[in-house]
Amino acid sequence: MDYTALLLAVRPDAAKDLLAILIVFASAKLAAELFERMNQAGIVGEILVGILIGPSILNWIAPTQLLTTLAELGVMFLLFRVGLEVKSSDLLKVGGTALVVAVAGVALPFVLGWGILLLWGEPQIEAIFVGAAMVATSVGITAQVLAAKGLLHLGASRIIMAAAVIDDVLGLLVLALVSSLAKGKINLVELSMTAAVAIGFTVVVAKWGTKAMEKVMPRASQLRLTEAQFAVAISILFGLSVLAIYAGVAAIVGAFLAGMALSESVGRRVLDLTNGVTELLVPFFLVGIGLHFDLAAFATRGTMLLAAVILVAAILTKVLGCGFGAYRLGRKDAIRVGVGMIPRGEVGMVVAQIGLSLGVIAQGIYGVVVFMSVATTLVAPPLLTWAYREMIRPGEEDADQIRLG
Amino acid sequence: MDYTALLLAVRPDAAKDLLAILIVFASAKLAAELFERMNQAGIVGEILVGILIGPSILNWIAPTQLLTTLAELGVMFLLFRVGLEVKSSDLLKVGGTALVVAVAGVALPFVLGWGILLLWGEPQIEAIFVGAAMVATSVGITAQVLAAKGLLHLGASRIIMAAAVIDDVLGLLVLALVSSLAKGKINLVELSMTAAVAIGFTVVVAKWGTKAMEKVMPRASQLRLTEAQFAVAISILFGLSVLAIYAGVAAIVGAFLAGMALSESVGRRVLDLTNGVTELLVPFFLVGIGLHFDLAAFATRGTMLLAAVILVAAILTKVLGCGFGAYRLGRKDAIRVGVGMIPRGEVGMVVAQIGLSLGVIAQGIYGVVVFMSVATTLVAPPLLTWAYREMIRPGEEDADQIRLG
Repeated sequence: MDYTALLLAVRPDAAKDLLAILIVFASAKLAAELFERMNQAGIVGEILVGILIGPSILNWIAPTQLLTTLAELGVMFLLFRVGLEVKSSDLLKVGGTALVVAVAGVALPFVLGWGILLLWGEPQIEAIFVGAAMVATSVGITAQVLAAKGLLHLGASRIIMAAAVIDDVLGLLVLALVSSLAKGKINLVELSMTAAVAIGFTVVVAKWGTKAMEKVMPRASQLRLTEAQFAVAISILFGLSVLAIYAGVAAIVGAFLAGMALSESVGRRVLDLTNGVTELLVPFFLVGIGLHFDLAAFATRGTMLLAAVILVAAILTKVLGCGFGAYRLGRKDAIRVGVGMIPRGEVGMVVAQIGLSLGVIAQGIYGVVVFMSVATTLVAPPLLTWAYREMIRPGEEDADQIRLG
Repeated sequence: MDYTALLLAVRPDAAKDLLAILIVFASAKLAAELFERMNQAGIVGEILVGILIGPSILNWIAPTQLLTTLAELGVMFLLFRVGLEVKSSDLLKVGGTALVVAVAGVALPFVLGWGILLLWGEPQIEAIFVGAAMVATSVGITAQVLAAKGLLHLGASRIIMAAAVIDDVLGLLVLALVSSLAKGKINLVELSMTAAVAIGFTVVVAKWGTKAMEKVMPRASQLRLTEAQFAVAISILFGLSVLAIYAGVAAIVGAFLAGMALSESVGRRVLDLTNGVTELLVPFFLVGIGLHFDLAAFATRGTMLLAAVILVAAILTKVLGCGFGAYRLGRKDAIRVGVGMIPRGEVGMVVAQIGLSLGVIAQGIYGVVVFMSVATTLVAPPLLTWAYREMIRPGEEDADQIRLG
C-alpha cells in the first residue's frame, strides 16, 4: 500500500507499536478469562501469557521501550489506586509491627541468599548481590489480589502495605550498601544521606500528606476545569512519583503515598476515572513481568537446580521472616503477612540488572534471579487466596481486578 | 544520590520520562484553567502551552518518542470516546450531504494552496504538496469542542463527523496521487487498489460494525473477567485502529469507527472508564500539537507573509467549500459545518513531513505548513463556539472536556 508505506516512512513504528499494544492487551485479557474459568487467579494467567508471547517461547513481542513505559505507568496507577483505599492513619497505627515485619523480611532472605551462593562456590560479591536481589518485595501483585477480593481493610493487609513501603526503603539501603561494596569503597556519609532522604521523604508524605490534601482538594472543586479533582489528583501522583525517584525510593512508593494522601479527600468520581486507567494499563505491567523472563538464561542443569533452591529460599525466608515479625497477631494473620510479602516482581530484576551492569553478576546467575522474581510472583496469588480463605466472601473468589468502593 | 544514580544507570530515562509526563500534564491543566477563567476554550490554552514549553520558547520539553506515542493514544481515545456517542445509522443518513461537503472541502483548499505557491514562485511539485497538506481536516479538536458542549447530536455536527471520515479517505487518495507524482511515476492500478481498500474498510465497518457489535457485546457480559465489556471494547478499539493503518486510513478513523460500532451496545460503565483514559491522555495530544510548532522555521519576513496568506486560504477554503456542500441546510448550519472542518492539526504536519522526507518540500515551506496546521487548530474552538452560540445551553459554555451521558 503506497500511502501506508509513506506514513510508515515518517513514523515506522506507529503500526508496530499499536500492534504490540493490541497483542499484549488482548492476550492478557484472554489469559485472565481462561484462568478465571479454571478457578485460578487471572493475574497469574496474564504473567504466564507474557512468558508465552515473549522472547522465551513464541517471540511475538519483545519488551520494547514503549511497553516498558506502559508497564511502569501501569504499576504506578495500580499502587495509586490501592493507596486511594488506604488511610494513612490506619497504616501509621500498625507502623511498629510493620517495621519488625519489614526488617525480619529483609534480613532473612539477604543472609540465606548470600549463604546459598557462597556454598554454591560463587564469588563473595556475587553472593552478596544475589542476597540483595532477594530482599525487596514487589507489593503490586499482592495489592491487586487483596483489592480485588475486598481484603485491603483487614489488619494483616494493612501490615503488608505498611511493611512493603518500609521494605522498599530498606531495600534501597541494602542496594546502596552492596553497590558501594561492589565498587570497593563504602562512603558512610553518602550512605547516611541516602538513608536520611529516603526515610525523610516517606515519613513526611505518609504523616502529613493526608492533611495537606484535605486542604488542597476542596479548592480543586472550585476550579473551572472539567474533572478538576481528577486532574489535580493525577498531577499529585506524577509529582510524588518523580520526587520519590529523586529521594531514592521507587516511583511506585511515591504513587502509593500519593494515593494514600488523597484517600480521604477525593470523591467517588476520581476512583471511577482512575479505574479506567488501571484497567487499561495494568495488563502491560503483568505481561511485562512475563516478557522479561528468559528461559534460555538458566537452561543448564546446574543453574536450574540453583534456581529451584533460591526459589524455595526466597519463599520460605519471607514467610518465616515476615511471619515472625507479625507472630503476635496470631498464626493465621502471621501467615497472611508472610505470604503477602513473597512476590519480588520487577524489583528483584532491577537489582539483578544493576549487578549485571556493575559486572559483578554473571549471566547465568542473572537468569536465576529473574526466575526467582517471576516465580515468587506467580506462586503468591494462589497462596494468598488460600491464606485468606476464611475472609473471602462467596462470589468474590474469582475477581482478579480492582473492584472497590 | 547513590541509589538513584544506580537505578538511572539501568533505565536512564525513567526519571526524565516521568518528569516530562508531569510537566506536560500539569501545565496543560493549568493552561486550560487559565483560559476557562478568561472565557476562552481550555483546549486552545493546552495547545498554546505546548508552544510555550516546547522547543520554540522555553525548551523544557522536546517531543520525544514517548510523548508522541501518548499523544497518538490520546487522540485515538478521544475519537473512540466521541464515536461512542454517535450512532452509525445517524451518520449514514447524512452520508450524501457529507460526501459533497468532504469533496468540496478537499478540492478548494488543494487548488488554492497549489495556486498560491505557484504565484509565490515555488516549484510545481512543492506547490502541489502544499495543496495536499491543506486538504485533510483533523477532526479531534472539533469533536472535543462539540462533545464538551453537548452538541454532537445536532445535524450539523453529524455532518461534520461523517464528512471528516470521508475527508480522511480523500486525503489519503490525494496524498497517494501526489506522492506518486513526486516519485515521477503514477501507477493507476496501485492507486485504485489503495482507494478500494480504504473505502472498503471504512464502508464495511461503518455499515455493519454496529450489528456485529450487537452480537458480540452481550456475550462479553457473560465473561468471568472483571470489567469484561471494557476489556472487549478496548481490544476492538486497538484492533480496528491497527486494521485502519493497514487499510491506509489513519488510526484515529479506525478508533472513531470502533467507538461508533460499539455505541449501541456498551453500558454506562464503559463510558466512565473510557473517560478516565481520555482525561489522562488527551492533554498529551493537545500539548503535542504545540510541541511540534517551530517558530524558528518560518521566522524570515518573506515566509511569515506566505504563512499568513496560506492560513487565511486554509480557513476560507474550508468554510466556503464545506459550507457550500452543506448550503441546503441553511446558512447557519452551513457555517457551522464549514467552521468545524477548519482544523488541520496533526494531519497537515504528517503530509508536510512526508514531503520533507521525499525531498520535495523545503524547510521554510515545511515551517509554513506546520504554522497553518497549528493556527487553524487554534482558531477553530472560538469560531465553533461563535457559530453554535444559539445552541449552547447556559452554564455549559465553559466546558472544554468531554462530559457526556
